[in-house]
Amino acid sequence: MTTSGPINFAEKLSKFSEQWSPRVIAAMNDYQFKVVKLKGEFVWHDHKDTDEVFVVLDGEMEIGFRDRTVTIRAGEMFVVPKGVEHITRAARECHALVIEPSGVVNTGDAGGALTAQNEVWV
Amino acid sequence: MTTSGPINFAEKLSKFSEQWSPRVIAAMNDYQFKVVKLKGEFVWHDHKDTDEVFVVLDGEMEIGFRDRTVTIRAGEMFVVPKGVEHITRAARECHALVIEPSGVVNTGDAGGALTAQNEVWV
Repeated sequence: MTTSGPINFAEKLSKFSEQWSPRVIAAMNDYQFKVVKLKGEFVWHDHKDTDEVFVVLDGEMEIGFRDRTVTIRAGEMFVVPKGVEHITRAARECHALVIEPSGVVNTGDAGGALTAQNEVWV
Repeated sequence: MTTSGPINFAEKLSKFSEQWSPRVIAAMNDYQFKVVKLKGEFVWHDHKDTDEVFVVLDGEMEIGFRDRTVTIRAGEMFVVPKGVEHITRAARECHALVIEPSGVVNTGDAGGALTAQNEVWV
């Protein structure tokens, strides 16, 4: 009737080392939960059709906007509003949970080398 | 342009003491993020139209199903599939994040004394 067990973030994160490469760990309706390892600086992009949630699991990250920068630490979350340009950064490797609708591309329409393959489960 | 800061789970949880009384802390599209304090046993119920996600922030909780029980600890999440009867329990007070569409009633159609007022932000 119910098939899955609890999903442990640390255990999922231990299964890959690639940075900027989100891995899907769960689905809720048409949304997905992904864990990601961030280090350095991503690319400016936005998501035209959806908000995007970051929950920091370990370490800290910055989300840069054109007018300010927000720092998010372990035990905190942030909602990036749809259509708002942003860039993520982390001085040291940071582990985060990303929540957004299925099919959202990590770089939005910006493309480039950091565009990750979608729908990769771990 | 972007108005909110990081949302700190512990800080939000420090602002209320009522158990089984979810408080909304963030919205993403038509979904809400709620923090809740659980202790004791809830009521059997289901949500006919939606999956429901629990992320344990502190402590541990059980989700009972008719055929088994799942224990979720801090650093873990679980997706309760839509339409599946479940009951939440916690021997000691547990703090969790609940993610589901706006307007979902905590007791589903079961009602009763533990039915919480919806849309209460903290």
